[in-house]
Amino acid sequence: MVPAQRHLAFLLSVFLAGATFAAAPQDPAGYPDADASDPARLGWMVGSPPPPDRILRFDDGSYFRFPAMRWSVSHFRQLMPTVNVSRGLGAPAPLPRALRGDIDGLVFQPLGSDRTMTWQASLKANYTDGIVVLHKGRIVYERYFGVLDQQGQHGAMSVTKSFIGTLAAMLAAEGTLDPSRRVAEYVPELASSAFGDATVRQVMDMTTGIRFSEDYADPDAEVWAHAAAGNPLPKPGDYTGPRSYYEFLQTVKPEGKHGEAFHYRTANTDALGWVLARASGKPVAQLLSERIWSRLGAEQDAYMTVDSTGTPFAGGGLNTGLRDLARFGEMIRNDGFFNGRQILPPAAVADIRRGGDPADFARAGYALLAGWTYRDMWWVTHNAHGAFTARGVHGQAIYVDPKAEMVIARFASHPVASNAANDPTSLPAYHALALHLMGSR
Amino acid sequence: MVPAQRHLAFLLSVFLAGATFAAAPQDPAGYPDADASDPARLGWMVGSPPPPDRILRFDDGSYFRFPAMRWSVSHFRQLMPTVNVSRGLGAPAPLPRALRGDIDGLVFQPLGSDRTMTWQASLKANYTDGIVVLHKGRIVYERYFGVLDQQGQHGAMSVTKSFIGTLAAMLAAEGTLDPSRRVAEYVPELASSAFGDATVRQVMDMTTGIRFSEDYADPDAEVWAHAAAGNPLPKPGDYTGPRSYYEFLQTVKPEGKHGEAFHYRTANTDALGWVLARASGKPVAQLLSERIWSRLGAEQDAYMTVDSTGTPFAGGGLNTGLRDLARFGEMIRNDGFFNGRQILPPAAVADIRRGGDPADFARAGYALLAGWTYRDMWWVTHNAHGAFTARGVHGQAIYVDPKAEMVIARFASHPVASNAANDPTSLPAYHALALHLMGSR
Repeated sequence: MVPAQRHLAFLLSVFLAGATFAAAPQDPAGYPDADASDPARLGWMVGSPPPPDRILRFDDGSYFRFPAMRWSVSHFRQLMPTVNVSRGLGAPAPLPRALRGDIDGLVFQPLGSDRTMTWQASLKANYTDGIVVLHKGRIVYERYFGVLDQQGQHGAMSVTKSFIGTLAAMLAAEGTLDPSRRVAEYVPELASSAFGDATVRQVMDMTTGIRFSEDYADPDAEVWAHAAAGNPLPKPGDYTGPRSYYEFLQTVKPEGKHGEAFHYRTANTDALGWVLARASGKPVAQLLSERIWSRLGAEQDAYMTVDSTGTPFAGGGLNTGLRDLARFGEMIRNDGFFNGRQILPPAAVADIRRGGDPADFARAGYALLAGWTYRDMWWVTHNAHGAFTARGVHGQAIYVDPKAEMVIARFASHPVASNAANDPTSLPAYHALALHLMGSR
Repeated sequence: MVPAQRHLAFLLSVFLAGATFAAAPQDPAGYPDADASDPARLGWMVGSPPPPDRILRFDDGSYFRFPAMRWSVSHFRQLMPTVNVSRGLGAPAPLPRALRGDIDGLVFQPLGSDRTMTWQASLKANYTDGIVVLHKGRIVYERYFGVLDQQGQHGAMSVTKSFIGTLAAMLAAEGTLDPSRRVAEYVPELASSAFGDATVRQVMDMTTGIRFSEDYADPDAEVWAHAAAGNPLPKPGDYTGPRSYYEFLQTVKPEGKHGEAFHYRTANTDALGWVLARASGKPVAQLLSERIWSRLGAEQDAYMTVDSTGTPFAGGGLNTGLRDLARFGEMIRNDGFFNGRQILPPAAVADIRRGGDPADFARAGYALLAGWTYRDMWWVTHNAHGAFTARGVHGQAIYVDPKAEMVIARFASHPVASNAANDPTSLPAYHALALHLMGSR
């Protein structure tokens, strides 16, 4: 490869890394369906060695092309460096099982459709890799597809943000972090960036006024610089941009005013991760392990991808086992209590559930999410059940329905990098299941 | 970086990756001692971000320079891609504790020295990162230094080989693998390499006649090509060599005859890993998890580094928690029985303990290891206690003393990449401790 080609390959890997995992409208048509794109069926990385056309690599971007991406989301650690999020060394907290046979046939109406769909059909429609449903703390439904199984770990992508927001809400409730203070008070290096004069609260709720385009079609979009900065591969010789997430954040320019509208921008979570690291003295992977993961009775360690300076990708780098994702959701549903202990202060969970400012959210213009708000990096539905959710761009989710005493954890690998592609066959299915479970208590 | 520089950096990372972790005589003088090189004291990768001179990288080789290497051996996954070796999802098998206070003061005589040393002093003399001693299955001694702790995972380096050899002995005892067959019968791709007409047994005992120099001072040494092939980073544009461990193995040329002498050469283990993958249909990381790690009651997942095609580095890529290394050793001491089940066939352990051919071993000329043999990638002392051991090049070890009912698991990061630097302060200490424990039963 000549240098120009090498640089192109680097940018391609950056792009396809989808390091920010942001929403970009795409045409869902033309992609193979769930069965045709099943990564087990396609045999990625099977064989010693795998056939050449079944080998996926990080550096040439092949790993994140659809349908290969469906293998990669369950194998990020085989593609790039990662940091462990230890579960500790004890026995896992049991998740009692009370499996039900009446869920697959549940019927719901997808958003924007005049036809109904069964729960079972929805799992293929939205490229589910695994799903666990807890009702009153017991597993009532559990399915795995493709290359994910109970012992696997899957990229949570933007569900990561809700973990980071939860850590921030926890430190705030404990008084270790003051959300009313300016970001620059915690991270002086961000003083002259757009983040500097934002409050920590504005970062936590993504109401900062920052220039951060996640339009992949625009070669000048900030998302490219963000991804290139965070790419753990050696930088090309002609590379002059920021070389880590933290270097990137210092380059972010203002756009609009802070505190006026919700703008979903991954850079906020990376900035919040930096604030947390300074407020706690610990990188977010360590903080997550010490304060939550090791106390949760998780059955598997989690992990986060890291940049070339070892900084965990707060905006989207977490990978976990599916049942552990459900344990985390169940802990949140129980106001921070799980595994025989109070893991989060109840005030932290109350702050999440209360939600954010409706007017701020409305300005973001999410057609499918009318009436929702965003708080502590969680999406709050404000529906009759008080449901709130963590959302990843390819369909990963934690969905907590307090009234139905239900928690859903889902991993998915939808070809379209936008929740607008997942929501029609997932949100109404979740709500229908909640009503069903409530009716049969 | 211009291409030549880039290629140089790549080779440097190859070299410093120490991918084969082979023994090369070096001068131990001039290195900072254990305290001065303590990675916690030196603050590698501490801070958000760490200071520039405390950041360690894989691609520029900085991570494997001494003393930085002392941090890296506990953090390989933060530097390169890895594959999980699942422990399963159940509760760990307890290791009962019966800590003793009479071990630190134990006195022994280092090899080649006319002065005595205490056990406690030996741990600093040989740059120990962590050590656990089991006596009759109970932890009688446990210490961690630097950046390793009970929840950490450390590179086992060539101790990996004994795991691979154990898997081979297991499959042989079960009849899945026939050690008398030629390598090419399992791996046709190796037919025209030096391995092709070797028996699996010769590979298992490293009595193959292959050309594989591990002389780092020689730029034409095969160890360079091996490491470059296994390096997971993108290959430089002018790179023309093999691009994976498996491609490298196909290039290995004969030197001497098979079956005449023991030659410690990492490539044998990689070839054995390939044979195992073909005989079992599973990559060694999966085989290790399914057949041993998930049945052992391990408290942590283990992991292996991988090359750019996802092949685990059988010759030295395993990383584990220290207590889990001890659990594995205890299982071997108990003839394959541990955690309430028969994990290995007793015949497999018997084959290891019986050892190899003394004449073959003697021809290798190890001054400090007179009377030893090598079998199934274990080192067998043939001392009065029937001790045998797994050995890593910077001092990692599993030491099993059947007569004393003792197992020692040790992680270390000695600056000199040769067991000749570790043995004088470890082997006699182990034996002295065995005698001490026997005397106080």
